[in-house]
Amino acid sequence: MPSSAGPTIGEAGEHAAIAEIIAAAPSSRNGDDAAVLTQATPNSRTVATVDMLIEGRHFNLEWSTPAEIGHKAIVQNFADIQAMGARPIAALLAISAPPSTPLSFLRELATGVSERVNQFSAELVGGDLTAGDNLVVSVTAIGLLGGSLPELTLDRAKSGQKVVASGKIGASAAGLALLQRFGRDFPFQFTELVASHCTPHLSPGRGVIARATGATAMTDNSDGLIVDLSTIAKRSGVNIDLNREAIAPSPLMVEAGELLGVDPWEWVLTGGEDHTMLATTAGEAPSGFRSIGKVQRGEGVSIDGQEPEYETGWVSF
Amino acid sequence: MPSSAGPTIGEAGEHAAIAEIIAAAPSSRNGDDAAVLTQATPNSRTVATVDMLIEGRHFNLEWSTPAEIGHKAIVQNFADIQAMGARPIAALLAISAPPSTPLSFLRELATGVSERVNQFSAELVGGDLTAGDNLVVSVTAIGLLGGSLPELTLDRAKSGQKVVASGKIGASAAGLALLQRFGRDFPFQFTELVASHCTPHLSPGRGVIARATGATAMTDNSDGLIVDLSTIAKRSGVNIDLNREAIAPSPLMVEAGELLGVDPWEWVLTGGEDHTMLATTAGEAPSGFRSIGKVQRGEGVSIDGQEPEYETGWVSF
Repeated sequence: MPSSAGPTIGEAGEHAAIAEIIAAAPSSRNGDDAAVLTQATPNSRTVATVDMLIEGRHFNLEWSTPAEIGHKAIVQNFADIQAMGARPIAALLAISAPPSTPLSFLRELATGVSERVNQFSAELVGGDLTAGDNLVVSVTAIGLLGGSLPELTLDRAKSGQKVVASGKIGASAAGLALLQRFGRDFPFQFTELVASHCTPHLSPGRGVIARATGATAMTDNSDGLIVDLSTIAKRSGVNIDLNREAIAPSPLMVEAGELLGVDPWEWVLTGGEDHTMLATTAGEAPSGFRSIGKVQRGEGVSIDGQEPEYETGWVSF
Repeated sequence: MPSSAGPTIGEAGEHAAIAEIIAAAPSSRNGDDAAVLTQATPNSRTVATVDMLIEGRHFNLEWSTPAEIGHKAIVQNFADIQAMGARPIAALLAISAPPSTPLSFLRELATGVSERVNQFSAELVGGDLTAGDNLVVSVTAIGLLGGSLPELTLDRAKSGQKVVASGKIGASAAGLALLQRFGRDFPFQFTELVASHCTPHLSPGRGVIARATGATAMTDNSDGLIVDLSTIAKRSGVNIDLNREAIAPSPLMVEAGELLGVDPWEWVLTGGEDHTMLATTAGEAPSGFRSIGKVQRGEGVSIDGQEPEYETGWVSF
């Protein structure tokens, strides 16, 4: 835990600590036994997901600020909501923290959460704060799926469709590699890559747009491009063939790879946490998406018909 | 972590571990990026809450089985959903566990979760499993609030109402005190008190019934009777006067108090985790509830007009 001015949670007490969070991320729905969400439009369904982040495994306080951790926790959960074709509307934030944690840490984390949920016109509607030996952050995201179109599942990719992507691929892994080598003192020209890791971008509405324009399957690049697309290929019983040129590492990633002695294709193919939306659609690439490959008969994921050079991805155990 | 036959999570790997959980608590809604819930009836709203349980703070593996931990995690979250007047329909389960955790632990925990959600006609629809140094269990509960009546909030108790309760008061604290003294070798006659702590009872539908029959404010006895009712009194700007006879410790609690040298009124007034539903209503006590006091002008909580002998409750920091 970084040193910081001001009282700790243990000194201020539970109520003051919760008040800090609520002040940084206010919502009229917060503060009762449970949060009552806005009334959904007729025919809409509720969508829910949860992710737990552990200090030292999912984030590192040496190179991530509390606000960045809050940002990332929201993005990774809202990406899962968008990957169903839905719109995120609310988040719940459960935190376990040592009593020695500064109150300011909670305030900054909640500020990061607040800025991100606001970007999606969503709200932080509730949560839990408890003492624990380690810092653990669990975010639940809730979304709405309107209209009568089916949700975008992992098992509905169809031969003949395009594979489309919205967002960077491999940039987060490149940023992480730079942080692991240099800490926050990384060479200045790589700021964009490090930002891709610490504050991954997620564009509101991409799931809704993809679903409205004919996408049938969708996920996000959270564990690794090949791993995540392999899940769609397996569940859908198809082959996904990627276009090498369309997923090639950016010039900045190539430069970082040269500096670190790493093949940047490894970041592209195995790096997760970009939270890039990946969909299959019979139509044109939806607004904000680009075509990166095609769905065809067969199995697994290939690149221009060849087996990928790198296939592994993030595993927790 | 108790020793157990069979492989650990670390040995079996993440996918096998998640498969154990899903086999024990199956749902067709599970297994995609996020869970799509059943379509709600018109005019209904979604209700959500989260609680994080830390090993050694919220549960103790020396005297709670994995199934009991799963049971308790669902009950405490579903009680919060019911306390809004809503009906629980789904749960998400996020777990951080050391790689040395037996797979059987996850299976038994999920079995406890499954039995409890089934009792409410709800489902375990998703979750997250990640490695961590400590065992942390975070449950999100989602419910539906149908019809046009307002939800049951903490700030709508009104002078002239009855205070009603459904469930035991102080029994969980008595059971915890017995476990702290004797471990699982407690005297046999106190089985019921220990069960109140390890597998607290929650009756499905109490929130819906209370809301339908005129209740306006509701909570559950999670942090302590006086603490939880004080929150209603403060938010609503009223006094809550309890009837001493109606909340008196049971003969079994008196017996346990004599054995342990503890005034059983301390358990009644400060003990939490009974998850007894507490409501205020202008009507008769709803089905399954009993009257335990009245709402009147003033402030705070009193017992037959006197200040309570014990007032503290559970605080995390």
